[in-house]
Amino acid sequence: MEKVSRLTNEQKEYFMREAMKEADKAALIAEVPIGAVVVLEGEIIGRGHNLREQQQQAAAHAEMFAIQEACRTVGSWRLEGAQLFVTLEPCPMCSGAMLLSRVEEVYFGAYDPKGGTAGTLMNLLTDERFNHWSYVEGGILEAACGQMLTDFFRSLREKKKQKKTGN
Amino acid sequence: MEKVSRLTNEQKEYFMREAMKEADKAALIAEVPIGAVVVLEGEIIGRGHNLREQQQQAAAHAEMFAIQEACRTVGSWRLEGAQLFVTLEPCPMCSGAMLLSRVEEVYFGAYDPKGGTAGTLMNLLTDERFNHWSYVEGGILEAACGQMLTDFFRSLREKKKQKKTGN
Repeated sequence: MEKVSRLTNEQKEYFMREAMKEADKAALIAEVPIGAVVVLEGEIIGRGHNLREQQQQAAAHAEMFAIQEACRTVGSWRLEGAQLFVTLEPCPMCSGAMLLSRVEEVYFGAYDPKGGTAGTLMNLLTDERFNHWSYVEGGILEAACGQMLTDFFRSLREKKKQKKTGN
Repeated sequence: MEKVSRLTNEQKEYFMREAMKEADKAALIAEVPIGAVVVLEGEIIGRGHNLREQQQQAAAHAEMFAIQEACRTVGSWRLEGAQLFVTLEPCPMCSGAMLLSRVEEVYFGAYDPKGGTAGTLMNLLTDERFNHWSYVEGGILEAACGQMLTDFFRSLREKKKQKKTGN
């Protein structure tokens, strides 16, 4: 079954900016800046940002928190009809959580050449062997989402360098 | 790099029986009976069972709880050197969480022909494009692990039938 987007470009960019606000929250606490929101009928029903270092939890990804909050909001593990926005292409775990929650449409910002499984290394979200698949669109505000990550890692390298030279 | 198992068959079966005890806890509360444990240096450091219906959370899989508890136990998102045992072949989400937590060895009981991604539909755990990969072995106490699921679904069908006929 061919899946289609039900959103305008303006809507896609609006919600990706909301995901970027979540990524900002991660950056402020020295976490890799990745953020996500889940949207249902035009309303944000779940938000999340990366908290891996702070929580020391391997699964503490932005998308997982956004899906968890969305499930709480609707009172169901089924997020049928929902859209998920995330600033970076999802990894296998988060792609899998999107399938399990039956999210209808997935929009991501920057592509992840090292671990992205929503089109780059593979596309888990459109593999018809699973019992659900989603519409997927990458590259929403791609430059801005990618820049957040670039800036974060540059600043991290500079801090490490300063520490090394004692400045 | 070739990964190898560091466990004897007796050890594998011992820990799989512990995972089955977790699956029993799920069955008792009418959840699909799937259980998991994480082991480090011979000690169980995390346990979990499926709680999807009870929590109405898409990501409430046995492996996720076991990994979460294991991360809490060691105080780190890195579970290097750890072994994970689960009664059913993991889905993409749980396979991904195993990669992210850097679990060293994964042992599962029954194969999942519909959604298993540790060898059946694909093997996410040995894909060298990701930044971690694991030793994977399926079929540990396979018949017993599979029987738990068969019994559960048979009982569910009988209950539905009784409800339909009013008996």
